Amino acid sequence: MNFIISPICLENCMLSSSSVYRRQLFVLRSLGVYCCRIHMEGGLAMRTGLSNLGDDAVGIIRKITPKLDPSHHKGQAGKIAVIGGCREYTGAPYFAAVSALKIGADLSHVFCTKDAAAVIKSYSPELIVHPVLEESYNVRDDERASVSAKVLGEVMKWMERFDCIVIGPGLGRDPFLLSCVGNIMAQAREAKIPTVIDGDGLFLVTDNLDLVKGNSLAILTPNVNEYKRLVEKVLHCEVHDQDTSDELASLARSIGGVTILRKGKTDLISDGSSVNEVSIFGSPRRCGGQGDILSGSVAVFSAWARLYPSANKDASSTQSSLNPMVLGSISGSALLRKAASLAFEKKRRSTLTEDIIECLGMRYLIFIIQFYLSTCP
Amino acid sequence: MNFIISPICLENCMLSSSSVYRRQLFVLRSLGVYCCRIHMEGGLAMRTGLSNLGDDAVGIIRKITPKLDPSHHKGQAGKIAVIGGCREYTGAPYFAAVSALKIGADLSHVFCTKDAAAVIKSYSPELIVHPVLEESYNVRDDERASVSAKVLGEVMKWMERFDCIVIGPGLGRDPFLLSCVGNIMAQAREAKIPTVIDGDGLFLVTDNLDLVKGNSLAILTPNVNEYKRLVEKVLHCEVHDQDTSDELASLARSIGGVTILRKGKTDLISDGSSVNEVSIFGSPRRCGGQGDILSGSVAVFSAWARLYPSANKDASSTQSSLNPMVLGSISGSALLRKAASLAFEKKRRSTLTEDIIECLGMRYLIFIIQFYLSTCP
Repeated sequence: MNFIISPICLENCMLSSSSVYRRQLFVLRSLGVYCCRIHMEGGLAMRTGLSNLGDDAVGIIRKITPKLDPSHHKGQAGKIAVIGGCREYTGAPYFAAVSALKIGADLSHVFCTKDAAAVIKSYSPELIVHPVLEESYNVRDDERASVSAKVLGEVMKWMERFDCIVIGPGLGRDPFLLSCVGNIMAQAREAKIPTVIDGDGLFLVTDNLDLVKGNSLAILTPNVNEYKRLVEKVLHCEVHDQDTSDELASLARSIGGVTILRKGKTDLISDGSSVNEVSIFGSPRRCGGQGDILSGSVAVFSAWARLYPSANKDASSTQSSLNPMVLGSISGSALLRKAASLAFEKKRRSTLTEDIIECLGMRYLIFIIQFYLSTCP
Repeated sequence: MNFIISPICLENCMLSSSSVYRRQLFVLRSLGVYCCRIHMEGGLAMRTGLSNLGDDAVGIIRKITPKLDPSHHKGQAGKIAVIGGCREYTGAPYFAAVSALKIGADLSHVFCTKDAAAVIKSYSPELIVHPVLEESYNVRDDERASVSAKVLGEVMKWMERFDCIVIGPGLGRDPFLLSCVGNIMAQAREAKIPTVIDGDGLFLVTDNLDLVKGNSLAILTPNVNEYKRLVEKVLHCEVHDQDTSDELASLARSIGGVTILRKGKTDLISDGSSVNEVSIFGSPRRCGGQGDILSGSVAVFSAWARLYPSANKDASSTQSSLNPMVLGSISGSALLRKAASLAFEKKRRSTLTEDIIECLGMRYLIFIIQFYLSTCP
């Protein structure tokens, strides 16, 4: 059974006159606003108690986004760090880190190798870039232990300041670098810092599941191939194209309740106890880098959902009790899709990742929501 | 008692017809122009003789900004230098230096480490970037004295050309680098160059108060945490949330009459003998880098206030006698707030520091002021 959740304020709308109601519904539909659905295939959602989520992706974004308060000071809207960027890859960590700022974080750091640092810095003066990671080719065998300890020390100086870290964009697969990043992940978990894991970070954790097993503050964001490797490794079977929701929930439970955002034509999100689908129309363009935007966006929204649980005082108890990592994943997925759709409307087949980042500013969505609310009786 | 100062030319307006007066007032109000207030809490301003400042922030900007004169040559509108930029931080000195140019300075230099120089140069070809600073990791113990002397020599070749220097944006906290910068500050003071101190420069002077004590050409621009450290170090107490004006004036007097611009929801400025508040509505966004814009802006306005005391021939004797460092601080604060507000109107929550810099050009304000004046009888 597929169950489509009603748009925000639908109950209010039902009370209004039919012409006002039709106009509001037209505005929402024409802008693709109410598209977050709860999957209840095979009665799963009933079993996991999610039949009354009663909200949609835009509603969730509104609820977890903190108010902009002139009395706040720098950092209170979020401090994010991306661990990634090596000799080969520099675009991915930049996309993730700058997306976090565009969503509304106050500060965005990148921890990368020395080779990558100058290039990432040159993309934007808005980022704080730390050249601290090391790859094998630069480290003698007898230096490995001391260099590894130094890398960990350099990152840990900053760790407690961060509201969320992203592991993986442009990390590469150098074994020594990945072992250092494994140590960083263990320390982040110790410090209870939410962690989004993407790209080569997923390669690392698929081979070292203990790094995330049982960490309810971890979010994995696999694409089709990364998801396939995870399923084979954890569930010891091939990906099942039919029972996608059951399989995803089972995978999340098997890794001890981590949140998994399975990217695809529609995004599926589960922490093992709920499965949510975000199917807002995005873009048919598949230029590289969109996964990096997603990881940076999910990081900010997850931090907000965790930092400001009381922001929405009128939230129902069901909504308030939802896993902030799931709320952050739904929000990141929805906003990326909306931004990709806006960029595609403008640039069509020549849309690049930077065009989508330019559309991340939420003024479009906010405008729509404000317009919608202002037409409510 | 809080005393709101009337908008520019209000007395003239009062003489004009009521319809013209109302129109002028509407234009000013709708643009939030008259928002600089003089604090007189606890009779402080009476004691310090500032009850008749009789002007506002925009009026001050107009008075100290030099005319653009086709007969002038390069450099006459101001030559600014930023001392900052190290392996970790490159965005901050860029923001400060490019803001100085956007405000209207003719030349803007950056003195930074070699690691930072290429990156800062890559942000903009408009800046002159000197790779002369050194961090500990790059200097052997037995070389320190000679390297320190060399760094000082490289900066001093240029020092007398500058109308103001900014110490601190992206400076970092390397002890050797900070000791070199301490030497540069001492020489700048000797040469009577106005000096704006922000960020890690404040970390340096809080631990070495003699670097600024009694220097009436020094401006400190602390944020909440930096101000707290200064108060604890100088006044040996906690920050008092009630008597903010008295405390600020006392702090400025205790450091021998330096000017302090205390950043916050509203900015408070004091040289010990006056306390001014700039409360023009800015932006609720707190992305990192806005403090760097402020330091570059205050540097230009302070230089102008000092270089062109006779620019405004109709200035009252009270205005003429005001400390140019205070006038520069008020102007920098007001312009940053107005630019941040304009950027926020456009980009909302996704506003970044570069968006604010784009709004620094004063054509908006100048347009309004010109319109206002043209409607005066």
